[in-house]
Amino acid sequence: MTSKGRRPPPEVLATLPVAVDAMGGDRAPEEIVGGSRDAVEKDEIQVVLVGKPDQLSDIDGLDVVACSEVIAMDEDPAGGVRRKKDSSLVRCAELVRDGRACAMVSAGNTGATMASALLRMGRCRGVVRPCIATPLPRLGGKPAVLVDAGANAECTSAMLVQFAQMGSAFSNERYGIEQPTVGLLSIGEEPTKGTPLVKETHSLLSDGSRGINFIGNVEGRELLQSPADVVVTDGFTGNVALKALEGALRFMFDTVAGVFSIDDATREASGAILPHLLSIASVFDPENTGGAMLLGVNGVCVISHGSSSSLAIRNAIRVAHDLAAGGVVDRIAESISPAD
Amino acid sequence: MTSKGRRPPPEVLATLPVAVDAMGGDRAPEEIVGGSRDAVEKDEIQVVLVGKPDQLSDIDGLDVVACSEVIAMDEDPAGGVRRKKDSSLVRCAELVRDGRACAMVSAGNTGATMASALLRMGRCRGVVRPCIATPLPRLGGKPAVLVDAGANAECTSAMLVQFAQMGSAFSNERYGIEQPTVGLLSIGEEPTKGTPLVKETHSLLSDGSRGINFIGNVEGRELLQSPADVVVTDGFTGNVALKALEGALRFMFDTVAGVFSIDDATREASGAILPHLLSIASVFDPENTGGAMLLGVNGVCVISHGSSSSLAIRNAIRVAHDLAAGGVVDRIAESISPAD
Repeated sequence: MTSKGRRPPPEVLATLPVAVDAMGGDRAPEEIVGGSRDAVEKDEIQVVLVGKPDQLSDIDGLDVVACSEVIAMDEDPAGGVRRKKDSSLVRCAELVRDGRACAMVSAGNTGATMASALLRMGRCRGVVRPCIATPLPRLGGKPAVLVDAGANAECTSAMLVQFAQMGSAFSNERYGIEQPTVGLLSIGEEPTKGTPLVKETHSLLSDGSRGINFIGNVEGRELLQSPADVVVTDGFTGNVALKALEGALRFMFDTVAGVFSIDDATREASGAILPHLLSIASVFDPENTGGAMLLGVNGVCVISHGSSSSLAIRNAIRVAHDLAAGGVVDRIAESISPAD
Repeated sequence: MTSKGRRPPPEVLATLPVAVDAMGGDRAPEEIVGGSRDAVEKDEIQVVLVGKPDQLSDIDGLDVVACSEVIAMDEDPAGGVRRKKDSSLVRCAELVRDGRACAMVSAGNTGATMASALLRMGRCRGVVRPCIATPLPRLGGKPAVLVDAGANAECTSAMLVQFAQMGSAFSNERYGIEQPTVGLLSIGEEPTKGTPLVKETHSLLSDGSRGINFIGNVEGRELLQSPADVVVTDGFTGNVALKALEGALRFMFDTVAGVFSIDDATREASGAILPHLLSIASVFDPENTGGAMLLGVNGVCVISHGSSSSLAIRNAIRVAHDLAAGGVVDRIAESISPAD
């Protein structure tokens, strides 16, 4: 599972298309095809759609690589990748591996997306486990990044240190943040708080020798407007916390929308309030963030929200292309110190 | 650390005062004294304030037990309880142990509150570790309960099963929910998702032999409007998730309040919207929930938010008294099957 083949240099990657899994996501293939067309026509980014030809329509003028299988949203990831060698996800990862695409994008089965990328592209040298970097929007500022947002339910402190290194490289490349600050998610500020894993990781991050700009623990209540540019945690805690945030924000927006429709007075009042709220909501809308990225594999793999619309896919394609052309995988690979 | 002395029966507990830590909390002692006075005068509940007499004012007519020490908000809990035998927290717990109070309430150092209760009251027979039960408000319904909300960063599956049992007994006694449903916090619905601890606990909860009404895994996004009446998790994940929710709700309320004050139009519009939003916000305000409860110790210990006002303290005192008089500790003790 280590590096397969040689990764093309960024200047070559910039000329390659983005491989898009046409079959992945709750709104596939229509919204995926639509977003791909927008990326080609409006952003002038090359795209190669990977899907089952008999299920695709409106693809005139788009490049398509045909496949015969699809890994379902709820299918066992490892088994799906093993059995379905001609699936859209596996073919996308192979296009990147073979130097025929600069990056892959999927809104499909997250576990199977990770497995496809890991098994076909391989890990960057020295990486123990890839992790998922998910943007944490900050009002009025550049997003922070949560690593790991769900790739690894079980982690060691050496893995968390690598997540910090890879997350920092990603934050720098994606958002242009110089020497991103790194915080460790815990249940108090003090280094003595948390699980043995957290305390051990705190000690490793504190020693200053791994190129990490560590600022200490951050707490759950700080995940919005995070004081750290990179928030490090295991994939179980990260996934629970991220979904708790998503759920709370969704609940609040729905609740406020419900209040607006109570009576004539609230409906009228909403006219003055709604535009401001929508502009705030757009900052937190996964449609606009460009998706999460799998860090530590030998190629760019962007994981979009399952509910992605054409707009989300268009954004994800642009982000994926720009990251590949910017050499993000080289940056991430260079950031790694071998696990202790 | 097991049961110390004999717990009075509920009909005797109903006649005893609630011991209130006058020195604990960001707004102590003024708001604590004020809330205690309201409980006595408006709710006709007996209270005994425990504090340093020279720091208390406006205590005419209130019962006071004098102490000479205070465990600070940021003090090491175990060390504080060990060294400060005449602290307000330790004295509160001793009043419950000695059958002179029916319950204790503190808005002070959470760790020291737990340690005082555990060391002075002792555990209920068979309980491996006490846990914190925190209400998860549900709009239009009775609150759910999160166990463990932060007492134990490290847990075993046997502990989590006991949290489910104690949480169910608490949900029934506190909210009158018959056969409360229990969910396990994880990162997907499938029993195969999560850490080894979660998977093992899922298996134990599924076997149906422990009086637990288990409905499967719940995800972070379901913590508001939880489908389960009792959500079980380890204290690290529970604390991170709870604070993530608190942070997101606080952020949203602040953000909406900010929108209201943008210009004249939004200020005027807020008049129609604000009353509705405030009534929703009140459901989620820790001031109104009555506080968290430490389950598994041999007495009622209610932990209030550090920022508690007199209203929060008054609510906590009423809840503490009613729980004690209702025999909640007996219910919790009976719910436990010895750890496997």
